Amino acid sequence: MTVHIDFEPIGRRGECPPDQSLLDCARQLGVDLVNFCGGAGTCGCCKVQVIEGDVSEPTATEQEFLAPEELAARYRLACRAIPLGDCRVRVPPESLTAPQRTQVEGLQVAVEPDPPVRAYSVQVPPPSPEGGDLRADVERLAEALAQQHQVDGCIVDIEALRNISPQLRDEGWRVSVAVRGKEIVDVRPLSHRILGLAVDLGTTKIAGYLMDLESGRTLASQGVMNPQITYGEDLVARMAFAKRTPSNAARLQELVTEAINQLALELCAEADTESSQIVEAVLVANTAMHHLLLRLPVAQLARAPYVPAVKSALDLKARDVGLRIAPGGYLHLLPNIASYVGADHVAMLLAIEIAQAEGIVLALDIGTNTEICLANNGKLTSLSCASGPAFEGAHIKHGMRAANGAIERLRLVGDRIEYQTIGGAPPVGLCGSGILDCLAQLYQARVVDDKGRMGEHPRARDNGGDREFVLVSEDEREAGQPAITFTQKDVRELQLAKGAMLAGIQVLLEVNGLSEEAIDRVIIAGAFGTYIDVASAIAIGMLPRLPLDRFRQVGNAAGIGAKLALISRSKRAKAQAIARRVGYVELAAFPQFTKTFARAMYLG
Amino acid sequence: MTVHIDFEPIGRRGECPPDQSLLDCARQLGVDLVNFCGGAGTCGCCKVQVIEGDVSEPTATEQEFLAPEELAARYRLACRAIPLGDCRVRVPPESLTAPQRTQVEGLQVAVEPDPPVRAYSVQVPPPSPEGGDLRADVERLAEALAQQHQVDGCIVDIEALRNISPQLRDEGWRVSVAVRGKEIVDVRPLSHRILGLAVDLGTTKIAGYLMDLESGRTLASQGVMNPQITYGEDLVARMAFAKRTPSNAARLQELVTEAINQLALELCAEADTESSQIVEAVLVANTAMHHLLLRLPVAQLARAPYVPAVKSALDLKARDVGLRIAPGGYLHLLPNIASYVGADHVAMLLAIEIAQAEGIVLALDIGTNTEICLANNGKLTSLSCASGPAFEGAHIKHGMRAANGAIERLRLVGDRIEYQTIGGAPPVGLCGSGILDCLAQLYQARVVDDKGRMGEHPRARDNGGDREFVLVSEDEREAGQPAITFTQKDVRELQLAKGAMLAGIQVLLEVNGLSEEAIDRVIIAGAFGTYIDVASAIAIGMLPRLPLDRFRQVGNAAGIGAKLALISRSKRAKAQAIARRVGYVELAAFPQFTKTFARAMYLG
Repeated sequence: MTVHIDFEPIGRRGECPPDQSLLDCARQLGVDLVNFCGGAGTCGCCKVQVIEGDVSEPTATEQEFLAPEELAARYRLACRAIPLGDCRVRVPPESLTAPQRTQVEGLQVAVEPDPPVRAYSVQVPPPSPEGGDLRADVERLAEALAQQHQVDGCIVDIEALRNISPQLRDEGWRVSVAVRGKEIVDVRPLSHRILGLAVDLGTTKIAGYLMDLESGRTLASQGVMNPQITYGEDLVARMAFAKRTPSNAARLQELVTEAINQLALELCAEADTESSQIVEAVLVANTAMHHLLLRLPVAQLARAPYVPAVKSALDLKARDVGLRIAPGGYLHLLPNIASYVGADHVAMLLAIEIAQAEGIVLALDIGTNTEICLANNGKLTSLSCASGPAFEGAHIKHGMRAANGAIERLRLVGDRIEYQTIGGAPPVGLCGSGILDCLAQLYQARVVDDKGRMGEHPRARDNGGDREFVLVSEDEREAGQPAITFTQKDVRELQLAKGAMLAGIQVLLEVNGLSEEAIDRVIIAGAFGTYIDVASAIAIGMLPRLPLDRFRQVGNAAGIGAKLALISRSKRAKAQAIARRVGYVELAAFPQFTKTFARAMYLG
Repeated sequence: MTVHIDFEPIGRRGECPPDQSLLDCARQLGVDLVNFCGGAGTCGCCKVQVIEGDVSEPTATEQEFLAPEELAARYRLACRAIPLGDCRVRVPPESLTAPQRTQVEGLQVAVEPDPPVRAYSVQVPPPSPEGGDLRADVERLAEALAQQHQVDGCIVDIEALRNISPQLRDEGWRVSVAVRGKEIVDVRPLSHRILGLAVDLGTTKIAGYLMDLESGRTLASQGVMNPQITYGEDLVARMAFAKRTPSNAARLQELVTEAINQLALELCAEADTESSQIVEAVLVANTAMHHLLLRLPVAQLARAPYVPAVKSALDLKARDVGLRIAPGGYLHLLPNIASYVGADHVAMLLAIEIAQAEGIVLALDIGTNTEICLANNGKLTSLSCASGPAFEGAHIKHGMRAANGAIERLRLVGDRIEYQTIGGAPPVGLCGSGILDCLAQLYQARVVDDKGRMGEHPRARDNGGDREFVLVSEDEREAGQPAITFTQKDVRELQLAKGAMLAGIQVLLEVNGLSEEAIDRVIIAGAFGTYIDVASAIAIGMLPRLPLDRFRQVGNAAGIGAKLALISRSKRAKAQAIARRVGYVELAAFPQFTKTFARAMYLG
């Protein structure tokens, strides 16, 4: 027996086994519900509304997370509710992991291409029994390559080897040979190009870039959601899932490699080419994503003392991790620095040319984990702080991803709220930049004091003992929709997030014996960092109080770094040098960190 | 709808799709029927008897191959007969590719082990957050390896990488590291050994040897049938099958790799160990088998001018061809010399130490293709002659493989025949050595003259225009079984086979300007060569008429060569040197070859 579940308004429906939660049904049918906790019932994000059909009785967890009126309207947590028969279920926009604004372009760095793979056009003499030339095809090709291009002593990848004989005959003994170091990785028609794929694999998003390795030009770029999100929005949840069974780990790997393969296909379609012309890939990620992609063990990474399996840069056959590019193509992974400071941080530092930076430069990549580097006249110190997912909308009552209908900018004008939503759609919640604006406005209007306590205001009210500030009232929304509010609890979450970041910055300054004012430049990378209002971030004391012209929002610098490492061997070498040069500070081990952190939670 | 087919006396039964031949049904159910033509209906070997059930009407082909009394007894060619419903089918012994005497031991060559993979016992310091040691597991291991054994700069195979973190913790930070060149191929418990697998992959048989790479000792050896035989007994049939579709080629590869994997498991069971302890494999084969194993294209190999895809030695990840050994283990393939002189010939020459041979040495590996090398005071010349499968029992009326009941020795004593069968079983046919004895005896008794014409003898008779010599009469066999005879046509087949071999030898002598008498030593390798009576071979003029003490039957020298290359890097280098040193003679291109060949067919 199965049950038929219909998810609306997405229109995804199908048969599911009974006795599994609506979240499991959603996963099975490819509906990406927000769930920061991986279905453990602790984040309360996977809210759905049962429109038709019977489901199990609300659990204690649901009674805690859902308001009585929501329960009355048959709102449920998908991870707790088990269908008792066929059901029709509405997924509210804020519960849906929507494809969001993806940011793939950032600062541009000029670099002379110096790619790891080169193509050589070779004219191969056909066999001649009369002339006594019965050399094997591979030797025939290798000798022609040596004679015509002085490239000798090459070995041949087995997959490339399988193509050589038919390729030579199909192409009339004139072919292009793709060589990496001393290895022939592909033998192809002369018309084929030497393309590369750069990937910035984020916890939430994957950004991909298709490049011409010879010209260094970017041919196409795109971003997609990381499908692993179905198994937990944060790394801890995903690592816990992967650790449980080897097939779980394999599932996470498959999901992400398939997403990258699909991304490559789309990039190639956009550039009117084929993924078999991609001869090299470079990927950057945080250390946990890096390990999950390579199916490396994560048990020791997820547990104190938090040790990565490997930090050094790796060169692997792309096929060994399931990526489909040219037959013998390699995947290069930039080095990691520590368990929570990964290759994406190295790529960011590479892109912003930190190694050459003069003076005092602070560089941040803001996310669930925020990596921060302080360059002190060439001395690099990095750390990672657990800023949490609040700025990605999680743990915030009306928080949501940067999807349609999210309030992204907000101003308090007297008693009035002015706001702007993504896509100009009716408001459904607050995304990161909106949340930041909201707290800054309330603090500046003294509705929230420096300890984070919410006081009096015509729009502030008590809601069952928890104080909240009404951003969009029930009256301003569609009938039956609750007000969009910003709560005392939300303020506390944000204090934790901003406190973590500020404490991180302060520890770096302290380690270097510097004061805030000494910072010459602050570089803010990452999607959230690009969209925030820096003034708001300064107002709440998340970023140092410096003149605005010292700040630079650079977009996806990690992606740029991946691109640089893709087209230039010397940039790859630089990335390795950076990884070796960075001094890593373990925040938890820092003396008096708790005190610094507690102080940093004060607003302003 | 399916039909249920029951093969007896093997007891293999199952459901098969309708509209396919009994041969296809047999293949599907894993019954190995002899079929030299790959099911094309031209060899007439896949004879079966339908005991119950309806099959299609006998075809013209079957009427040609089967005697009227056989047709009456419902004997059919399995490749032609299509079941019309459930059937019970008897497979006579001679139609069954039985596991035959496999020969795995031959001459012993002493060699100092100098293996490509070495094991190092390493004590790795665990992470120490207090001591500031948060290195990644791989770097931690690599640095310990460098410090404790001066082995540095190693890269790590991705599969090995996946094991390191759990292995270190499970083993209490003391592990054994298997290193090949500058690559860590496995990290394992200290108790694991450094084992190697040597494989001689023949067209018909696979011989496998499990070795301890450190001591050089052979721990186990076994032979199994090559399961590709289901798709054709000779290479031409198999290459034709592989060429048809990529999935055919994949099928042939899977069959053989699975057989090798199974063989490895059995060898390990015999030696009370596990195949994950095997860190390196070496394989030798003829060029076609080599290509089929690697799934290299064979189209250009099977068609003039017969060019291999590759001749040089190869080092591949074992997993890239589907072999299951230690995570990062390699498969090494010795070099081929030409399309029909493969790595198995190189291995044979390595084993018999041809490079150091003094004087004039002739070395033969007799099979469907016979490879011959003449060493003339250090100058090596090799060729391959298409001796055909007659000595393996094919194209011989009562020929069969060396299975139970095969006549393996035969003497004509007056009018009486004395014979010996394999396993002492009642005679069912003649295997190679029996066939050779038979022809030699009939020639020496002048029943067959030097032109091969069969004359008068009390046991000779006419059978429908074809003359035949009765070895075991109808009366001496079970009721209803036909006589075992040796026919005029059989003599002609053998003349072709022996003529090809002798012509090959003569061409080599001519190329070197030598006469037969100049040969100091004749080395006969291979299973058939081991079992033949050399005097019989000389009698019919297949081998040079030299004193018997100049002959040496060395068994499976190719397998010995594979073992040497497995345990010794210097032997590997020698194999490469031999392959480069051998001058290859293309028989077909040799002037006056046809004349030499025609003359060589004379007996005596």
